Amino acid sequence: MIAVLRLGHRIMRDKRISTHLGLVARAFGADVIYYSGEKDESLLASIDSVSKRWGGGFRTEYRKNWREVIREWPGQVCHLTMYGLPVDDCAKELRECKDLLVVVGGAKVPGDLYEAADFNVSVSTQPHSEVSALSILLDRVFEGKELKKDFGGDIQVIPCKNGKNVKMKEGVGEVYE
Amino acid sequence: MIAVLRLGHRIMRDKRISTHLGLVARAFGADVIYYSGEKDESLLASIDSVSKRWGGGFRTEYRKNWREVIREWPGQVCHLTMYGLPVDDCAKELRECKDLLVVVGGAKVPGDLYEAADFNVSVSTQPHSEVSALSILLDRVFEGKELKKDFGGDIQVIPCKNGKNVKMKEGVGEVYE
Repeated sequence: MIAVLRLGHRIMRDKRISTHLGLVARAFGADVIYYSGEKDESLLASIDSVSKRWGGGFRTEYRKNWREVIREWPGQVCHLTMYGLPVDDCAKELRECKDLLVVVGGAKVPGDLYEAADFNVSVSTQPHSEVSALSILLDRVFEGKELKKDFGGDIQVIPCKNGKNVKMKEGVGEVYE
Repeated sequence: MIAVLRLGHRIMRDKRISTHLGLVARAFGADVIYYSGEKDESLLASIDSVSKRWGGGFRTEYRKNWREVIREWPGQVCHLTMYGLPVDDCAKELRECKDLLVVVGGAKVPGDLYEAADFNVSVSTQPHSEVSALSILLDRVFEGKELKKDFGGDIQVIPCKNGKNVKMKEGVGEVYE
């Protein structure tokens, strides 16, 4: 089981980044994303709507108290931070975790998170994006196999050299882009 | 030389995603990002300011006419699209390109881009994020070595197990987070 915990969501400012984090968590093989910060029903609904059409058992949940999520977590906790140890040095250990909670910071990361985490892991030591950091981390954990995962959804894309080839179950109209 | 071309930037809606794309392009080893769509000086300035403090020779440029960027490009063009061929099936060929232009779509991708591109490449066939797609593509092209790239900047992060270890040249005050 792999879960992602997104800290400090702000409705006005973070809507798109938090949406992308949820979509990345799902597409790259995590089972659930927990959002903390401001409660945002439409954020959860937009990810759930993708899961409904595109398949898989991905879940979203709002959790007011993120420290509780960490306390209750049965396995290891991996905090993504540009100050941590290189992801490729930790990948083997991360793969061996039975239950992994990946914590993605928000605007201000509380200092006790570094202590609460079993791993503080960085994806390069340069500033970039929590979205790319999460995708690379999950890619290392699943060793690239996540990109071939079959979600068995109502909408399926058939890879092609040029143009679009989309297979839709009857009654499914709109394609998410 | 590796360049990224971001299509259809909208100042109000895309500021953060376009910023993250620029930071990912830089951190993951590209040389330049071209933005098309709405002209946004503050977007370019924010990426340039990161490059100035964190090092490396990364450049940003606004280009009104994206078709011209493609026409003038001396090497291959790779269009990132969820409808394309799997990135891991194309990685070897992409690595062999001397000059690679990676095109990242905006809200609506014009149909002729599929024709203009030498490669239409997908990072999974699920909806997620142009930010994660770009990071995985560059990661495959540089085979993970981009994560260890030395930018020689005024600010340097020294990886550590817990907490923050940042080395700053004298006179450099603020840390980008």
